[in-house]
Amino acid sequence: MSIPKTMKAAVVPALGAPLEIREVPVPAIGPGQVLMRVHASGVCHTDLHAAEGDWPVKPTAPFIPGHEGVGEVAAVGPGVTHLKEGDRIGAPWLHTACGRCPHCVGGWETLCESQQMTGYTVDGGYAEYVAADADYVGLLPDGLEFGPAAPVLCAGVTVYKGLKELEAKPGDWVAVSGIGGLGHMAVQYAKAMGFHVVAVDIHDDKLRLARELGADLTINAVDQDPVAELQTQMGGVHGVLVTAVSNAAFSQAVGMLRRGGFMSLVGLPPGDFPLPIFEIVLKRITVRGSIVGTRNDLREALAFAGEGKVASHFSWDSLENINAIFDRMRAGAIDGRVVMRI
Amino acid sequence: MSIPKTMKAAVVPALGAPLEIREVPVPAIGPGQVLMRVHASGVCHTDLHAAEGDWPVKPTAPFIPGHEGVGEVAAVGPGVTHLKEGDRIGAPWLHTACGRCPHCVGGWETLCESQQMTGYTVDGGYAEYVAADADYVGLLPDGLEFGPAAPVLCAGVTVYKGLKELEAKPGDWVAVSGIGGLGHMAVQYAKAMGFHVVAVDIHDDKLRLARELGADLTINAVDQDPVAELQTQMGGVHGVLVTAVSNAAFSQAVGMLRRGGFMSLVGLPPGDFPLPIFEIVLKRITVRGSIVGTRNDLREALAFAGEGKVASHFSWDSLENINAIFDRMRAGAIDGRVVMRI
Amino acid sequence: MSIPKTMKAAVVPALGAPLEIREVPVPAIGPGQVLMRVHASGVCHTDLHAAEGDWPVKPTAPFIPGHEGVGEVAAVGPGVTHLKEGDRIGAPWLHTACGRCPHCVGGWETLCESQQMTGYTVDGGYAEYVAADADYVGLLPDGLEFGPAAPVLCAGVTVYKGLKELEAKPGDWVAVSGIGGLGHMAVQYAKAMGFHVVAVDIHDDKLRLARELGADLTINAVDQDPVAELQTQMGGVHGVLVTAVSNAAFSQAVGMLRRGGFMSLVGLPPGDFPLPIFEIVLKRITVRGSIVGTRNDLREALAFAGEGKVASHFSWDSLENINAIFDRMRAGAIDGRVVMRI
Amino acid sequence: MSIPKTMKAAVVPALGAPLEIREVPVPAIGPGQVLMRVHASGVCHTDLHAAEGDWPVKPTAPFIPGHEGVGEVAAVGPGVTHLKEGDRIGAPWLHTACGRCPHCVGGWETLCESQQMTGYTVDGGYAEYVAADADYVGLLPDGLEFGPAAPVLCAGVTVYKGLKELEAKPGDWVAVSGIGGLGHMAVQYAKAMGFHVVAVDIHDDKLRLARELGADLTINAVDQDPVAELQTQMGGVHGVLVTAVSNAAFSQAVGMLRRGGFMSLVGLPPGDFPLPIFEIVLKRITVRGSIVGTRNDLREALAFAGEGKVASHFSWDSLENINAIFDRMRAGAIDGRVVMRI
Ligand SMILES: [Zn+2]
Ligand SMILES: [Zn+2]
Ligand SMILES: [Zn+2]
Ligand SMILES: [Zn+2]
Ligand SMILES: [Zn+2]
Ligand SMILES: [Zn+2]
Ligand SMILES: [Zn+2]
Ligand SMILES: [Zn+2]
Repeated sequence: MSIPKTMKAAVVPALGAPLEIREVPVPAIGPGQVLMRVHASGVCHTDLHAAEGDWPVKPTAPFIPGHEGVGEVAAVGPGVTHLKEGDRIGAPWLHTACGRCPHCVGGWETLCESQQMTGYTVDGGYAEYVAADADYVGLLPDGLEFGPAAPVLCAGVTVYKGLKELEAKPGDWVAVSGIGGLGHMAVQYAKAMGFHVVAVDIHDDKLRLARELGADLTINAVDQDPVAELQTQMGGVHGVLVTAVSNAAFSQAVGMLRRGGFMSLVGLPPGDFPLPIFEIVLKRITVRGSIVGTRNDLREALAFAGEGKVASHFSWDSLENINAIFDRMRAGAIDGRVVMRI
Repeated sequence: MSIPKTMKAAVVPALGAPLEIREVPVPAIGPGQVLMRVHASGVCHTDLHAAEGDWPVKPTAPFIPGHEGVGEVAAVGPGVTHLKEGDRIGAPWLHTACGRCPHCVGGWETLCESQQMTGYTVDGGYAEYVAADADYVGLLPDGLEFGPAAPVLCAGVTVYKGLKELEAKPGDWVAVSGIGGLGHMAVQYAKAMGFHVVAVDIHDDKLRLARELGADLTINAVDQDPVAELQTQMGGVHGVLVTAVSNAAFSQAVGMLRRGGFMSLVGLPPGDFPLPIFEIVLKRITVRGSIVGTRNDLREALAFAGEGKVASHFSWDSLENINAIFDRMRAGAIDGRVVMRI
Repeated sequence: MSIPKTMKAAVVPALGAPLEIREVPVPAIGPGQVLMRVHASGVCHTDLHAAEGDWPVKPTAPFIPGHEGVGEVAAVGPGVTHLKEGDRIGAPWLHTACGRCPHCVGGWETLCESQQMTGYTVDGGYAEYVAADADYVGLLPDGLEFGPAAPVLCAGVTVYKGLKELEAKPGDWVAVSGIGGLGHMAVQYAKAMGFHVVAVDIHDDKLRLARELGADLTINAVDQDPVAELQTQMGGVHGVLVTAVSNAAFSQAVGMLRRGGFMSLVGLPPGDFPLPIFEIVLKRITVRGSIVGTRNDLREALAFAGEGKVASHFSWDSLENINAIFDRMRAGAIDGRVVMRI
Repeated sequence: MSIPKTMKAAVVPALGAPLEIREVPVPAIGPGQVLMRVHASGVCHTDLHAAEGDWPVKPTAPFIPGHEGVGEVAAVGPGVTHLKEGDRIGAPWLHTACGRCPHCVGGWETLCESQQMTGYTVDGGYAEYVAADADYVGLLPDGLEFGPAAPVLCAGVTVYKGLKELEAKPGDWVAVSGIGGLGHMAVQYAKAMGFHVVAVDIHDDKLRLARELGADLTINAVDQDPVAELQTQMGGVHGVLVTAVSNAAFSQAVGMLRRGGFMSLVGLPPGDFPLPIFEIVLKRITVRGSIVGTRNDLREALAFAGEGKVASHFSWDSLENINAIFDRMRAGAIDGRVVMRI
């Protein structure tokens, strides 16, 4: 594959400033790395946090965001033997990890204290090319196109992992709270995992989508009290995946659980949420934070998508529109997921 | 054993009123029950909550509190074949459960929605006799005297279960936050379970006791920041058992954890506690409520005590002094545990 | 419901003798029991073992076999409040257990050393009426008819539990070895649990059935080597459920596993099977016996059937034909399952 | 550290031939590797299998055996930043693994199909220097001397992992079958893990050692039937670690278990062992092969040794005596473990 010297990229010039479309050098790759020609790149809320620098640990500008980039291997670095030019891959949030700490060795590389994050501590997928660690990329299943693959790289694996963290088993009832870009994928993963699924949202159109995607029960939290409904209908659910952590969603989630239930939280809002201790103790509730997924989680999340059991509802857009996309995201005006053709 | 018609008991005449020492009828026992001649009865914070009626679900006065009563079988009801007069037993919080719901069948009888609670929904151990479900009493190990056995019935099994809920393994670091009546037993259980133990409190004498009981490290949270200390010394602990849930203890517990860590909460304070979502998600923290223990947990907790690996620091008192004991409890002036000779 | 004094039953007059259709007294029920009017009764290999008395622990003749009996509650004994006349139930293998040993309390009542077994140590479902422990019967889901419900009582729950014992997760590959009365239900449960399923048998018609029931891959072990096939196609499977334990099936099952795989064995053949230690150790294989299921397993197994995700292929027959049915069973000439209309 | 050009090593010149003490080149190290100056090297049965080439997959002669070598870092290769000259390390059986397959990512690197094994597929510790993968060496705890550290590298971690595989919890009864080089360490690990320990052997002196090391109960299988003893004394044990797999030991282990028990097998004897299916199924027994341990298992096994909770009984010998050591090993005449000073 012929590789140019420069490429188009959306660059964060300074934290909080609008992104700029620039022509920048194609990244060099070192031993153990691959260069990916990006074909599609999903837009995640985390990219917005990165660009605005509003998390405690901030990226260093200028940098290129994006951790849902998918494409083809354009070149392999020294020592890489398991990948070759043309292989279809994705470059996820976990750019690399140390590979030897107790977390890495124990199946929890996402907790590695020495990890690098794509589009945050190293340049990401809002560009024509991205340098990736050959051991940490995801292999796209045959037949899964770039567009639908992109959102699996973060949104998909995040909700899939969050559902695994509920420790539910096939046949159990699981609720998905919030049917947006994350939640509509969660409904599908939950069904593929054999759960009975309740979708909770405050918009009827999102609940309609949830039903189309297989939800067994939908509740509009404006019209009905999800706590009362679920406690009445099946004695509470075994697990709740909270995709949009708000005060209301958090309290409701606790109440929707049956005794012994699990709640898993994805997303990284700032602030504290009120934990009702008496209820947590009396009902033996488990509240758990869940952060993206390991390479195994990604492999599995991609496999479900490759078999057609999960498909993101996304709309195509272009890299040049990134600031407009971010504006719509800030306004909560994005349905499903946006994927940029690159 | 000759059984009198009446007995001495400490009765809650009305919620919120002082207890009265009364002469009341010895309870009748039905099929599947035993009558226990109480020899010792531990005093638990829950008894205070019961007497004051300050929990959402209230007991019905008049009633006899107490769920750390131990003694001998004085009589067996129809159909009871596995117990006989003279057997040494204890009547724990879980008076009985339905035995057929998914919780009961699945090893989680403490979550049974049809459970009865000793000293709360049925009369308890602040009396010379108590009626117990023969299938739900704990058998005291040979050689474990009544005095030291009593606090195991609730305090012991509660912290033992809370420690199990941390999902730690031998060799892991575990912190016990609060070295009072619960915490000083937790330190011992944690050592018997093979953990490395950190004790955190704000009183030097309690930390001294913790060291005597085997704690590997003690931290006075007034003098030192437990979060900074533990993160520095061993990169955070795998688990924290919070025995006294306060705002400060709760926040500290989150901070003391290593990534992937577990926190378990025992005790039933009212109110909400602030859960720092960003930290919970980023570090994949699991926060879990833990409520007493099942009959298996009790069997195991008693076995550790019977082997001398765990011993409650308790002081003897008398049933007649119950109101004074409650006063000292309200004032936080009780070290270890109070057991009433009956 | 009007209850007659006598009833028709198939009785084993002496171990090893043909069954006799007799008119015998309707069983009396005691406290905590229900009398079930049997409508349908499945025939299980275990009934044959019982009638022939060829297991180490033998039943005492005369007795009535049968542990797949389903029907209606005809009468409730003293103290039974959660069931009423007309409720649709089944009387499974686990007639009752002690309810207080570590196994019973710990979610493993099927291991209770004091259990009674329906159709083995107490009279079973080959009769118009059967006495059952009200706490141990299974509740039939609305809409699940008696015929299809019967085989779930033992065959269904047995394979469902055996599949759970594989500790596989949705998306994993699982093989079912032997597509007979047990295996054809296992294929369906495995699909409902989200697994990828391989069916292995030596008869093309059974493999055809397996494909109709959702198997993703079928292998005729006469034509193809299942070990080579599975190791080539997906690197071995995560789990194998061996429904018909033979020397050949057992060795093949070990070979079909990927490293770290699990094998679970259902059925109770006599004799020893050769365990290849080197392979077991090097690949960290787990070999596990699985015996029927608890009330929770049964509840779940029935729920899957009630939702139409699992349906037994059975043929109706009559109680009077039991000796002929047993003859066909000895000859291996039964496809699916036989259910007797009673 | 000044590194010579050549070194002394014990070389297997051809499979089945006696080892030869040769002067060979010091190995060169590449990127990501370290050179270890070996100070002590334990002798394992596996080394004998390697030298004789009697396992299905054979090493390629000539080669240097040994996977219990410990010493100091003499030089670090390009890119190694977490180790430095002088660091005290050990080079275990798992020389390296791919780091990206589902096994490696999922916490089971010991099952990696691309692994390299020290002293088997690459040269090992029977030499003055060995080249090791910097990410896969074990760090020796301060204060743990080279001699006692060596046997932890394989014998220690192997039994520690085998014990973990029993899924027992503190307070459970665990039996160690065979109190030799592996078993005497297993007794200590089992005690450190909080288990009650039964030691089973056929030599009184080994049982005496087991008692000194903390075993709660010892059984000489020549004088007493371990099956009857354990079933009588505590209703069978929760787990059995079989350190010397023989027909007799295997059958006994099954019989010693309580219902629901686990058996784990370490060691790699050829041949098949008779699995009693009826008993395995009826009692829900789990039989599991266990193969060395991951880097986390090694880290933990070394930590227990570093704290003085586990100490190998070993005798010093010299590299020059390796053929005599092997002879004694073949004759079963080695007590504990042999460590060669190098
Ligand atoms: Zn790491
Ligand atoms: Zn993202
Ligand atoms: Zn219940
Ligand atoms: Zn209490
Ligand atoms: Zn039982
Ligand atoms: Zn059956
Ligand atoms: Zn690997
Ligand atoms: Zn070894």
